[in-house]
Amino acid sequence: MRMVDLITKKRDGKTLTKEEITWLIGQYVAGEVPDYQMSAFLMATYFQGMTDEEQSQLAFAMLDSGDRLDLSSIPGIKVDKHSTGGVGDKISIPLTPLVAALGVSVPMISGRGLGHTGGTLDKLESIHGFKVDLTENQFIDQVQDVGAAIVSASGDLAPADRRIYALRDVTGTVESIPLIASSIMSKKIASGTNALVFDVKVGEGAFMKTRAQAEKLAKALVAIAKAAGVASVALLTAMDQPLGVTIGNSLEIAESVAIMRNQGPADVRQLTIALAAQMLVLAGKTDSLEVATNLAEDALRDGRALRKFKQLITAQGGDASIVDQPQTLPQAKLKVPVKATTSGYITGIDAEALGTAVMQLGGGRAKQDDVLDLAVGLVLHKKVGTPVHEGDTLAMVHADSEPQEALLDAVRQAFVIGEAAPEKTPLILQVVRPEA
Amino acid sequence: MRMVDLITKKRDGKTLTKEEITWLIGQYVAGEVPDYQMSAFLMATYFQGMTDEEQSQLAFAMLDSGDRLDLSSIPGIKVDKHSTGGVGDKISIPLTPLVAALGVSVPMISGRGLGHTGGTLDKLESIHGFKVDLTENQFIDQVQDVGAAIVSASGDLAPADRRIYALRDVTGTVESIPLIASSIMSKKIASGTNALVFDVKVGEGAFMKTRAQAEKLAKALVAIAKAAGVASVALLTAMDQPLGVTIGNSLEIAESVAIMRNQGPADVRQLTIALAAQMLVLAGKTDSLEVATNLAEDALRDGRALRKFKQLITAQGGDASIVDQPQTLPQAKLKVPVKATTSGYITGIDAEALGTAVMQLGGGRAKQDDVLDLAVGLVLHKKVGTPVHEGDTLAMVHADSEPQEALLDAVRQAFVIGEAAPEKTPLILQVVRPEA
Repeated sequence: MRMVDLITKKRDGKTLTKEEITWLIGQYVAGEVPDYQMSAFLMATYFQGMTDEEQSQLAFAMLDSGDRLDLSSIPGIKVDKHSTGGVGDKISIPLTPLVAALGVSVPMISGRGLGHTGGTLDKLESIHGFKVDLTENQFIDQVQDVGAAIVSASGDLAPADRRIYALRDVTGTVESIPLIASSIMSKKIASGTNALVFDVKVGEGAFMKTRAQAEKLAKALVAIAKAAGVASVALLTAMDQPLGVTIGNSLEIAESVAIMRNQGPADVRQLTIALAAQMLVLAGKTDSLEVATNLAEDALRDGRALRKFKQLITAQGGDASIVDQPQTLPQAKLKVPVKATTSGYITGIDAEALGTAVMQLGGGRAKQDDVLDLAVGLVLHKKVGTPVHEGDTLAMVHADSEPQEALLDAVRQAFVIGEAAPEKTPLILQVVRPEA
Repeated sequence: MRMVDLITKKRDGKTLTKEEITWLIGQYVAGEVPDYQMSAFLMATYFQGMTDEEQSQLAFAMLDSGDRLDLSSIPGIKVDKHSTGGVGDKISIPLTPLVAALGVSVPMISGRGLGHTGGTLDKLESIHGFKVDLTENQFIDQVQDVGAAIVSASGDLAPADRRIYALRDVTGTVESIPLIASSIMSKKIASGTNALVFDVKVGEGAFMKTRAQAEKLAKALVAIAKAAGVASVALLTAMDQPLGVTIGNSLEIAESVAIMRNQGPADVRQLTIALAAQMLVLAGKTDSLEVATNLAEDALRDGRALRKFKQLITAQGGDASIVDQPQTLPQAKLKVPVKATTSGYITGIDAEALGTAVMQLGGGRAKQDDVLDLAVGLVLHKKVGTPVHEGDTLAMVHADSEPQEALLDAVRQAFVIGEAAPEKTPLILQVVRPEA
């Protein structure tokens, strides 16, 4: 087999066989196929796409390049959640203890933030002492004892994906549905979960800008999961404004705690319950989404989720007192209001612009090795659909030094103010299940 | 400027500026842009194409990466010819002395063969002593003294193109009109010629398989030439069978000599005269193609072309006695006939298959550093349109060891025999000139 022939085959819109894809990834990992051939292949794939079978084989080949967690010692069905990433998306933090509180094991492997999106692991590190780097045995033990853990990937899961992702990042080949789907799935299958709920974000603040793109990605994800024997379902959810009212690491922990106190913003609460219900059904707790929804609401109401979160924090070495005293989380030195210069209704909020502003405050990473300021961020005082008067505070900037005028302007301009109230649009747009 | 942004811009079908293309090539040559980004850019260009302005700027940027021949000390208009490469294409060999014999300077820079196509320089090296590697001064002196020289590129013409071509070869990005056109033109402009005639081959035996592709390439070539201030015209010519009746290095020299003796196959003669006439017009010898055609025919008839060829051989250190005694050229040990197994008419001859057979006999290169057997090759006894009877010799294989049965079969199968005579199709399909 010659790599140039496989590149040409994909370029010409033909379908690669399982053997060809396995060879290609194997040779790449072995250093026999150079980056310059792989990047040409990736660009050809960008233009020509892949069949369901091809993208599954690509995910499996990348999976086979590395370690695989064995969670079989944990009894029952293990359920994980994966979000394609949004601004203000702290859902994993209330969701994991909530589902675990209902008796389902949640071995959650999360990531760090980059660019305008935050990362669950960074947010958790706002909690003094919280450790996200557990060994495989520590991870398994904790899921057995506590019912859940939220950790970074241990071992060497899908190293082929890591190398290919780094290459995609600098060759303009990130935005390809089969490459995105196989990348996500290679790691998720390697993490040993039995069931997966996907939260595929749609909108200007998300990676998938259109409903059609998001649906395509969701279908690719559940198809690969099915091929791997992993039960799954995907929700398409709106990212036409940030999720909740906080963006920034410790601010989002505080908001997560509020959700577990049966308070907090309606959108975060709704999505947490919806994802929890899907996870409960996949885990076989009930066949009925309605019953599952009620279970989740109860566990938020009666404090079981909150107690489980305290257990999880303690198990991972963190100071669980922040649950009762959120004011002990890192606090920014300054709070600077950003005010509306006109009146009307909020018709849109540019999530990417606000995520970028938080990054610029020091709360996110421009580069992989940037050190974060966990205290800084934004608190939104207005969400889409609310009326606004000139002079009203749109958002409060939490900063550790006087923020630049350009940043305050960018935050102001992220709020689009129109004359009429916008039509209400749903948060959960669609449910995508694997084809029978 | 960031390379990933330029890749993405091209991927999304946008037009790169002159500054962007200049930066891209400059950084690549400087080693600041790695191969893996260049190959992604090349694949994006394969899919999205380039505007006339972009491909000219690409040619100029590659041109600027290296040396440029200064032929200004040679008086008058210098005319070169470039063929996109075909099987049995020995036209440069009779054409160069023919045009020089009519008082036009022809500083011809030629190449070597690779794969199923032969190279003019390899063919000339069948002549004992013939040197193709002249210094720049030797080259210029010879064009001044003799009126013509056929040499390999001296100096470092368009090194960016050489590196990019090597990368395209292994990344499935060879077959892109703007990349082909800018590659050819970067070297041709660097060679210092004032005028260029292109022979763009069309058909199964050629790089451009369809008339539409060939026309697109021809238009790209003349457009870049015009942007560079080089007068040009392109002929689209049929390559639905090999040109002439010989394929193989010394065999093609003998056929070229026959043309200069006013003999030889009709197609080689017709194309030699047609290209010569275009070169004479570009050089300002006459405004009339008809007059130019008559001049060329005269110079073949009265022996001036042949005498000029002897001068050229002698000037380049070769033994010109082969012109009068072609039997002293390298001769193969064996001549094995390939016979028809059915009767009818020759409706097609697979030029690529025959070129590949000659390569396998040792007359062509599978790899850059293969050493050639200059004696071997094929002599066709039948061309498209001629009737054939079972048992007739289709071709004679000239080999230095007993040819394998598979090779003889491949040669036999290259001749397509149908029941009816095919329609006669023209050799010269179209003339493409730069837009006014």
